[in-house]
Parts: sequence; structure tokens; C-alpha cells
Amino acid sequence: MEVLSALNLGDFAQVFSKMGMFPVFDVAYYIVSIIYLKYEPGSVEVSRRSPVASWLCAMLYCFGSYILADIMLGSSPIDYFQYNSHILLASAVWYLIFYCPLNLFYKCVVFLPVKLVLVALKEVVRTRKIAAGVHHAFHAYHHGFFIMVIVGYVKGSGVALISNFEQLLRGVWRPETNEILNMSFPTKASLYGAILFTLQETHYLPVSKSTLILVFTLFMATSKIVMTARHSHGSPFALIESWVCHLLFGSPLGGSEEDHHAPAAPSSPLKTKEELSDGARKRKAKKAE
Amino acid sequence: MEVLSALNLGDFAQVFSKMGMFPVFDVAYYIVSIIYLKYEPGSVEVSRRSPVASWLCAMLYCFGSYILADIMLGSSPIDYFQYNSHILLASAVWYLIFYCPLNLFYKCVVFLPVKLVLVALKEVVRTRKIAAGVHHAFHAYHHGFFIMVIVGYVKGSGVALISNFEQLLRGVWRPETNEILNMSFPTKASLYGAILFTLQETHYLPVSKSTLILVFTLFMATSKIVMTARHSHGSPFALIESWVCHLLFGSPLGGSEEDHHAPAAPSSPLKTKEELSDGARKRKAKKAE
Amino acid sequence: MEVLSALNLGDFAQVFSKMGMFPVFDVAYYIVSIIYLKYEPGSVEVSRRSPVASWLCAMLYCFGSYILADIMLGSSPIDYFQYNSHILLASAVWYLIFYCPLNLFYKCVVFLPVKLVLVALKEVVRTRKIAAGVHHAFHAYHHGFFIMVIVGYVKGSGVALISNFEQLLRGVWRPETNEILNMSFPTKASLYGAILFTLQETHYLPVSKSTLILVFTLFMATSKIVMTARHSHGSPFALIESWVCHLLFGSPLGGSEEDHHAPAAPSSPLKTKEELSDGARKRKAKKAE
Repeated sequence: MEVLSALNLGDFAQVFSKMGMFPVFDVAYYIVSIIYLKYEPGSVEVSRRSPVASWLCAMLYCFGSYILADIMLGSSPIDYFQYNSHILLASAVWYLIFYCPLNLFYKCVVFLPVKLVLVALKEVVRTRKIAAGVHHAFHAYHHGFFIMVIVGYVKGSGVALISNFEQLLRGVWRPETNEILNMSFPTKASLYGAILFTLQETHYLPVSKSTLILVFTLFMATSKIVMTARHSHGSPFALIESWVCHLLFGSPLGGSEEDHHAPAAPSSPLKTKEELSDGARKRKAKKAE
Repeated sequence: MEVLSALNLGDFAQVFSKMGMFPVFDVAYYIVSIIYLKYEPGSVEVSRRSPVASWLCAMLYCFGSYILADIMLGSSPIDYFQYNSHILLASAVWYLIFYCPLNLFYKCVVFLPVKLVLVALKEVVRTRKIAAGVHHAFHAYHHGFFIMVIVGYVKGSGVALISNFEQLLRGVWRPETNEILNMSFPTKASLYGAILFTLQETHYLPVSKSTLILVFTLFMATSKIVMTARHSHGSPFALIESWVCHLLFGSPLGGSEEDHHAPAAPSSPLKTKEELSDGARKRKAKKAE
Repeated sequence: MEVLSALNLGDFAQVFSKMGMFPVFDVAYYIVSIIYLKYEPGSVEVSRRSPVASWLCAMLYCFGSYILADIMLGSSPIDYFQYNSHILLASAVWYLIFYCPLNLFYKCVVFLPVKLVLVALKEVVRTRKIAAGVHHAFHAYHHGFFIMVIVGYVKGSGVALISNFEQLLRGVWRPETNEILNMSFPTKASLYGAILFTLQETHYLPVSKSTLILVFTLFMATSKIVMTARHSHGSPFALIESWVCHLLFGSPLGGSEEDHHAPAAPSSPLKTKEELSDGARKRKAKKAE
């Protein structure tokens, strides 16, 4: 019986890891990404004033991970823009979210049950991107462990890593913080995921890739659903990280990130976008309209 | 007779689109570009204090379009610097404009009749660059419509798109605006031109490329001459754009760009460099000396 | 006798220019680079708060020259990260300098006699990097004099040229100055060195490469040792530069750089990092802990 269940699980993981992402999962990814763009203060005003800037930001939110990975591997940063159907789909989502009459589309997709499903689907895409990024880097540099981790990391984190420059496009400049200084949960998880997939790719982690994809997807989807449902921005890694950082890097124990950087820039909006509770975001987005 | 005139026009367009740009047109392009650099507040002081920074800015003004297009297509950003004669020519122009005794060279080239000719010649080069950029991208990505438009666009706009970083090189930082948020006439026209040339390249626009080059050059040269002569910074697209943006993106009707962004940053110098009336520029440049 | 001594010198230069840099010289380079990172105000706090950001900055300090040169030549910017042993070595140095118990390692390496040796070894690596950069560019562009100079220059200057963005990673933004506007001695020397090596590579300078490497290394090592020992930040080029700039670019005579930019931004920390006297630096670094 045990063998059978293991076989079935392996089979399921196999099927799951081969499943096509286009268009359902990709659309979910675009929707959730562009919702986060709309949450950003000032983004609605920019969409009225300069549709080109707003569209470019939306493309960065949707395809930032491809752009960054292409830069890291020395390819054309706009290489992914050759897939016209993906770009058109993302543009349609951008148009519906920002310009739909009565704001109807936006209201549908931020309705909590719908949003929870979309958020989970987004994490499926994120995990697949990390795995693909590590695999791609592995083909270019067979022993480049650091390169594999970096490419997997940027594939998972996407626009968050260049949020300073994405904001600059919208006329906002907040140099006192960035996603590396104050990592949000998805960025941290992408880093850990990239390390795991690199270990798997180089056979230091004795599991099959499909199993790792399945397990990591389940972890990410569950975490994000719980965090979205509870409007929380605590990280499941907080406790263990706090101890490891204390031992290795002498960081003060127990304090969350907020405590550390608070004195550095007390009056500025320091929480990163994916960390903001959804309640606060919606209020801001509504105000902006 | 009609056939003959059409033939003649086609022949003329053919000859015009094959005409070499080096050195006459290129020199005009360098002169007008570096004049715009000298108009920038503080640039004369930088040229005294750090000739290397001033030279680098001048190179960005002259070759920014090549640098950006090479980045977009994943080539070496300084690939164009292999053409020593072009670089030396642009450097000579930079030296004459910034360091000529009695400011003689500068006074000659900003004399209105001379300047009008130079401005017209610059637009000839710009149109050719857009066409070449679209063609280059077409060879790399046969169905990459978005890539063709982007590459043609950056070839036409050049340094304007990275003006924030060009200013940073001179120690100036104005994050509250950029060329995408507040497009000037040449940037907008480059975008529309890139779309037209992409349609032509992919045979959706049933005209020959040489005719399109001729027509677009005439339009650009006329517009810029009129705008330079009248010290105006109104755009010929304003009316139609205002309506289209109102219908598609819900932008408020009738207001010019200035009205929209005025409240966002009331005390900062918001007009982009190519939009500033020449009178104001000259006064600034004189003051700086 | 003279022939013999010339022969010996040539032999010595030959051997010197073929000597392997890994690991002794490279370790010295990493140590001195990361000491300069620790001198930066706020960097110790960042190392406690966000080890990932601190590690990234350390990598930029150690490998910025490779990253920049790869970008300039259109390769993958993280290409050098395939050499795992170099990255691990630099990471170990970073860990020891920032997190060693009792700050023991740091105290050892900033002990003046030790530091003078390390500084001299670093200049050996810098010279070799410039020569390698020019040679690399020569292979890609046989007549690209400007490209050779630029690549040699970025190989010699490294992180200094992107210090604005390195600071941004640590949450610091000082747009009013940069390394091009206010060149420090190593940056200037790298520029002159890149020009010399380009002339040598294209046979306009009739000396062998090994001799040039030897002579330039001796000049750089001597200058830096004297400057470090005397806590000075005057440049040996100051007098001749002042005259040349006065003649060619109309710069005011006799004033040092500090005098020129002082009025522009009187209250900001304008001295670049490699120019700060060591005494001041140590005090700052101590305070930060």
C-alpha cells in the first residue's frame, strides 16, 4: 500500500510539474501582480496622466522576473516581449484593472475568495519560475552554484528587487529602503527556494525535481493564502531566522525587522508592498481614485 | 503626367532614403544635441570642473540612442564606440561648443537661421535611426512587434529616456519627473514613428519604406522648425491625444500635461529640456557662464 | 654590464607579469576592498540588519570591476561568479572583517604595517586587471581605442564608478556627487593607466607589456603606500593636471577639486571613500560599532 501511495504521489508530482501555465495560471499571476501595482500610492493617478508609464510599470510587475534573469545571463532584457500573446494578455489585464468602467473588474478580483484562489495560482507560477531559472543557469554554468542561486532568486522575486527603479518610473523615489535591505516574505522564500532547487539540480538534495516543485508550491500557496486571509505580514521563517542571524551575524535577538530600521527613517513609508496588510492597501487604493 | 510625378516622387524617396548621413547630417545631429546639453542648468560649471563627466554626458547626448538600442538587444552598450571617427567628430563638436575662445562656435550655431537648418538635419537623422532600429529588431525577432516598437522608440528618443541618469552624472537628481511621465514632442513622435515603421516592416502598412522615411522626415523637420522658430512647445498631437486618452484611459479632457503634474511638484523645474522655450534656455545658459 | 642589467630587468618584468594572483594577491585585494566598505558610515549597521545586503555590497567591492567590464562588453554581469573559489574566499574575508569575535581580524589587518603591505598587493592586482581589460577589449574590437580605454578604466576603478548604486543598496543616496565628478587618485590613475596600456596594445607605445606592468605597478604601489602612510589624499598628478585643465578646458588655476565643489554642496560628506584620511575613517568605523 505504501509503495502504491508513493507511486501515486510521484505520478501526481510528475503530472503537476509538467502542467502548462498558459493561460490560466499566467492570467492569475498577471492579475495579482497588477493588483499590487494598483495598491501602490499614486499609481492610479499615473495611469490617468501617463498611460505609457503605467503600462510599462505593469509590464515590469508581470515580466520583471524574465527581464532580470535575461540581464543576469547577458541576453536581451526584452527578449520575453517576443511572446506577443503573453504581452497582449497582460496588457488586457492591466487595462481591465485600471480602466474598467465602474472599477468592476478590480472589485471582482479583490473579492477575498476570488483573491485567495488567484494568490495560490500565482505561487504555482512563482515556484515554476524559480525551478526554470535555476535549470537555465545550470545549462549555462554547470558549476556556477552562485549563478544558479542568483538567477533562481531573481526569477522568483521579479519586480520587487528593482522596486526602487520601478517607483522612479512613476516619479517616486525612496532611497532609504529597498527589497534587499528589508526582504518581504516572497523574496525571502524565493531565495530559500533558489538554494533548494540549486541543491536539487546539482544532486546534493536527493529528491526528484517534480516532488520538490510540488512540495515548495504547497508551502508557498498555503503560506500566502493564510497571510492574505489574515491580513498578516509575519513570516513563517521569523523565529528560526532570528536565531540563525543572532548566532552567525550577531543581530540582536527577537526584534522584528521593523524594530531595526524604524529609527533609521522614522517618518517614511517603510513597509514593502507585499508586506502591507490588505486592509490598509485597499483603503489607500480607494482613496487614490 | 500623374504616373510620371509618382515615379519621380518614388525615385526621389529612394535616393533620399539611401543618402549617406556621415559626416554632414551626423555633425548637425551632434551640434544640436550638445547645444541642448549646454542649455541644461549647471552643465557649463561641470565642464569646467570635470571635463571627463562633461565629455561622457556629451557622448550620451550624441550616442544615447545607440547605447540604449544595444542594451535592449543584449549587445555591448559601448559597441558604437568602435567607430572612432564618429566619436572623434562628436568630441570635437563638444570641445568647440564648450571651450571655444569667446564662445564663438556656440554663438554661430545658435544663430536662429543656422539653428533652424541644423534642427531640420537632426530630424533627418532621427527618422533614419528609427527605421534602422525597427529593421534591426525585425532581423532578431521576426514576430516581435513589441520589441520592434521598443527598439525603434529608443533609437528615436535617445538620451531623453535616460535623462534621470544622465543628470545624475552631472550631480543633479530630479526623481519627481522623467521623460516617460512627461513626454516631450520628439519622444512622442518617436513612439508613433516606431509604430508606423513596425507596421511597414511587417507589411501591415502598404507603403514602401523609402516613402515612409520621406514623409515622416518632412513631418518631423517641419514640426521642429516651426516649434524652434516660434519658441513653442505645443505638440501637434495635443488635440487628438487629449480625446483618445479621454475615451480610452479616462484622462480629464482639454488639460495639457502641465496642468496635471503641476500640483504634484509645484516648486520644481518640470519642463523637460526639449520643451523649454529657446529664449529661456539661452538666458539660463548665459547666466551659467 | 648595462646590457646584462637590462636583460635581467626584462626577465624580472617577464616573470613578474606572469606571476599568479590567486590566492595571495587576490586575498589582499579582497581585504583592502572590504575594509573600505567597513569604513563607509552605516555599513556595520547594515551588516547586522541585513547580512544579504552587506554580502552583496562586499561582492560589489571585490568584483565590481569584473561586473562592469562584463556589462561593457555585453556579457553576463555575473559571469565571474562561476569561479566559486574566488567568491567563497571573498565571502570568508567579508565574514571575518564584519563578524569576527572581538573584531580581531579587522584590528589585525588595519594595523598600519600590515595594511601598507596589503595596499601594495592590491595595486599589483589593479594594474594586472587594467592590462587584462585592455587586452580583452582589444580582442573584441581591434581598432576600438575608446572601447579599450573604457574597459581598462572600469577594470581598474571597479565599484567606485557605481558607488551611487552601491550606496543605494545600503539605503544611502548622495546624488550630488559621484566618482566621475570628483575622481579619487585610484580612479584617475586607472584612467591614465588604461590609456597607456591601450597605446601599448596598439603598438603606439614602444615598450613591452611586461615592462609597462612592472613600471605602472611600482608607481601605483609607491603612491598608495605613501598616501596611506601619510593619511594624505593629495594626488601626484595635481600640479600637471591643474595646468593642462587650465589650458585646455579653462578651469581656474591652482584650486584643488575640493575648492570647486565646496560651494555646490557645502554640508554634505563630499570626500570620496578612498580619499578620506585613514584616521578619520577609523574613527568613523569605530563609532559605528
